[in-house]
Amino acid sequence: MSTLSVDLGARSYPIHIGPGLLDDGALLGALVPARQRLIVTNDVVGALYLDRLRSTLGGKAQVLVLPDGEAHKTLATFERIIDTLIGAEFHRDACVIALGGGVIGDVAGFAAACYQRGIAYLQIPTTLLAQVDSSVGGKTAVNHPRAKNMIGAFYQPIGVIADTTVLESLPARELSAGLAEIIKYGLILDAGFFGWLEEHIESLRALDPAALEHAIRRSCELKAAIVAEDEREQGRRALLNLGHTFGHALESLGRYERWLHGEAVAIGICLAAEVSVARCGLDPAQCVRIEALLERAGLPTRAPGLDPGRMIELMRMDKKAAAAGLKLVLLERIGHAVTQLHTDEIALAELLRGAFAA
Amino acid sequence: MSTLSVDLGARSYPIHIGPGLLDDGALLGALVPARQRLIVTNDVVGALYLDRLRSTLGGKAQVLVLPDGEAHKTLATFERIIDTLIGAEFHRDACVIALGGGVIGDVAGFAAACYQRGIAYLQIPTTLLAQVDSSVGGKTAVNHPRAKNMIGAFYQPIGVIADTTVLESLPARELSAGLAEIIKYGLILDAGFFGWLEEHIESLRALDPAALEHAIRRSCELKAAIVAEDEREQGRRALLNLGHTFGHALESLGRYERWLHGEAVAIGICLAAEVSVARCGLDPAQCVRIEALLERAGLPTRAPGLDPGRMIELMRMDKKAAAAGLKLVLLERIGHAVTQLHTDEIALAELLRGAFAA
Repeated sequence: MSTLSVDLGARSYPIHIGPGLLDDGALLGALVPARQRLIVTNDVVGALYLDRLRSTLGGKAQVLVLPDGEAHKTLATFERIIDTLIGAEFHRDACVIALGGGVIGDVAGFAAACYQRGIAYLQIPTTLLAQVDSSVGGKTAVNHPRAKNMIGAFYQPIGVIADTTVLESLPARELSAGLAEIIKYGLILDAGFFGWLEEHIESLRALDPAALEHAIRRSCELKAAIVAEDEREQGRRALLNLGHTFGHALESLGRYERWLHGEAVAIGICLAAEVSVARCGLDPAQCVRIEALLERAGLPTRAPGLDPGRMIELMRMDKKAAAAGLKLVLLERIGHAVTQLHTDEIALAELLRGAFAA
Repeated sequence: MSTLSVDLGARSYPIHIGPGLLDDGALLGALVPARQRLIVTNDVVGALYLDRLRSTLGGKAQVLVLPDGEAHKTLATFERIIDTLIGAEFHRDACVIALGGGVIGDVAGFAAACYQRGIAYLQIPTTLLAQVDSSVGGKTAVNHPRAKNMIGAFYQPIGVIADTTVLESLPARELSAGLAEIIKYGLILDAGFFGWLEEHIESLRALDPAALEHAIRRSCELKAAIVAEDEREQGRRALLNLGHTFGHALESLGRYERWLHGEAVAIGICLAAEVSVARCGLDPAQCVRIEALLERAGLPTRAPGLDPGRMIELMRMDKKAAAAGLKLVLLERIGHAVTQLHTDEIALAELLRGAFAA
């Protein structure tokens, strides 16, 4: 087991990474001492791991099983969690345990952030994407019918348990989606890690435990360093959005059905890389390496039939947009990202059109 | 005009107090530079002050006028504000301006806290209660059908403008409700201020501008000092809840119609004072002074027909309750409050019965 501390002063917390942690009673007992506990999970993950978690925890715990899927990351689901907490007369010293992927972590975390203005929550992410993305950064949210993650809070968990064994039950497509975020960390911050990924991508897809533990740990470390610097995304943290402004627009264009989040981010990274070649001198050979690694990870790199105009319209609604124009994260080289403000949307649309025609 | 800084590191902000500030274009312009702005108000306050605020602000501002009253401090109203922000395509650099009493400040502040995980908001409290209570502390929330302020966030405004002139349109009963909180600050923290209030209570009720400015400023100073020490209510900040655990239960018993919040707090303070005589040596003569000042402020001090058992049941649901028992704020003497854990609810009920029979 690897343990890593996310350093945020009074809000610091540990991330434990390794195989079989869901059965580690001592670890869970230390993180969640006896008190009121609500496990929030979904029907798919719950069927696989809820009984094990309850038996490891021992004692009483309330359980709320939500339907699976991003369609349920809504204010109505948030309200259901709050109703459950109030119905069970939970106090301020209670704890919410999120057992599931990003959707469960985001909505349960947001409910924990708002219930009585904030109670403890523990994250047990069960997808690779959630283990490397949602476990660091304190972003919680629900979607609005018109845009993703529009309603939420920055709120830190008391701890994260990333059990690599649970990834064995993850569909291959979702594993790949998680790899997209891992590749992203190498791209924006660590060329050496990107090189390591080029060497180990097949081991990761084969769920080699040591490779997984390293990739998850390094991803969390890289993200934690940026978040510690810029918890509320005023500056440098924006770099983590490489591929995401495009990605969110793609998800919306695909009605959140065509692509998984990580898949949309993979296409978004390719778009960002192509804009980077044109706008900030990214070596075209590196652009080719980036697309090749994403493909080897089992990810899409193209979105045929895309409408650049509609895409830019959606990007403008993204949270990262400023009144002055679209702020994009681009790459000067592998391992070094920068932000660039795009005030000329027509030129950007042309560039996108070109990238997709290619 | 008095200006006071609430010192919370990167989240510090100014409170400006004085007559006629709603017409001070330079002050408002400095606080809310030209950007997307949404004014949230209610129909009563809006009819009186919305046009003036818009003309002082100049330029464009979206407006959302909510129905007046605590009944609208709900998740549904929160959602309406979010919908308005999304409908107007507000970005992260936008600002919400809350023009109204505590309800408007709480719900608009909570919406600002959650929209895109937090945008700026400016408070313009138009009741005495909101000027001395909601302007310091960053508490935002909405009610749940089963309990008050159950869903919310700690979130700081970018500034507060307390215009004492607007209090001229406030019903006398609401002015008194604000005085209850002002008296509370003297009771828990500053015997000298309590003495000043005994001398100036009539000037305050007559809206003497200098007396108002002093009382609001001193109240905000006392609260700000405690909040700076304990922003998230882990310890000392709990003292501010003198009279509130009783008060919230009373409000609920009265279905939020019988008493205004400040009136319920006034009765709660009297209950706390009587429990204090029995449990922590408060001089009975001071208890008499406390009740006398509250009465002179035009406040109720008794709740005839109270059921102590039902009251304790409601108090147990209060956010301040811990799993171990009821935590009450009591007075050792005027100017010095302490917290005490009550594990024996039956004894407490007896004490309440006695206090109300007296």
